[in-house]
Amino acid sequence: MIFLGIDPGYAIVGYGVVRVEGNRFSMLEYGAATTQAGERMPARLNQIYEQISAVMARYPIDEMAIEELFFNTNSTTAIAVGQGRGVVLLAAERAGLPVFEYTPLQVKQGVCGYGRAEKKQVMEMTRRLLALEKIPRPDDAADALAIAICHANLRRNAASARVIQTITRK
Amino acid sequence: MIFLGIDPGYAIVGYGVVRVEGNRFSMLEYGAATTQAGERMPARLNQIYEQISAVMARYPIDEMAIEELFFNTNSTTAIAVGQGRGVVLLAAERAGLPVFEYTPLQVKQGVCGYGRAEKKQVMEMTRRLLALEKIPRPDDAADALAIAICHANLRRNAASARVIQTITRK
Repeated sequence: MIFLGIDPGYAIVGYGVVRVEGNRFSMLEYGAATTQAGERMPARLNQIYEQISAVMARYPIDEMAIEELFFNTNSTTAIAVGQGRGVVLLAAERAGLPVFEYTPLQVKQGVCGYGRAEKKQVMEMTRRLLALEKIPRPDDAADALAIAICHANLRRNAASARVIQTITRK
Repeated sequence: MIFLGIDPGYAIVGYGVVRVEGNRFSMLEYGAATTQAGERMPARLNQIYEQISAVMARYPIDEMAIEELFFNTNSTTAIAVGQGRGVVLLAAERAGLPVFEYTPLQVKQGVCGYGRAEKKQVMEMTRRLLALEKIPRPDDAADALAIAICHANLRRNAASARVIQTITRK
């Protein structure tokens, strides 16, 4: 199966495409949809929508996994990031991709088997599982690959099937 | 000129289409894009996108005005509303519509000429300016019409041209 992982944002959206065969992972593509800083927000959202839709069109992706966001800061940031996340969810829906959401804790758990794993450990485990020479850059792309791996691991785990279904129903 | 006003949300998005000729306003259409409560979020976002895109296709709209949002509550709500707002901004961009953003204070100012006007006053002034028998329902639609009127009024005011330009650059 082929999974697309997404690390959402409004300025930059990380993505990673991972193929899973049995226990074996392989990386098909990773990168980041970028937007121009001085540009109007609607144009930036369209840049994200088009770049992510193009990734979805390049591979026969089965499912998309995206990070669930929380903010303790001001709501202006939350709304801006929500806007970016919204257009990626729209792209998925219009491409017919089922969407699965994971909290940062679930991503750590899903990649390292340990919810208190440090970011470095998650990155390193992602690198190893995909047999990459270096940890992918930018961080957004590495995070997106980790989310795809998390989804693949948790999905395989029958015990977590119920959890996943709950998550997607929100 | 024809303006589209938008009151953003993730469950319901109010819209109002207003024609302005000189000092005269007329209401072309108002309503609300609605989504199914039990439905997955990506599907709801797509419902909003399609309904609002359909409104944009029905009239030769010149510009869109949308409310700028602030939240003091939890970020989960802010992100959800941001997602809904994001797909409307995307629809505008893809329809080639320039977007103008107004704070609730600016809407009151723009409709009633008074930033501390009560919601009731804004609704009543909107009803009068559009020569409607009753205040439109739901509230989201009435708010959207008010935002369109606010834009028309502030736009005509040469003194506020600079402000508008600043707002759209964000």
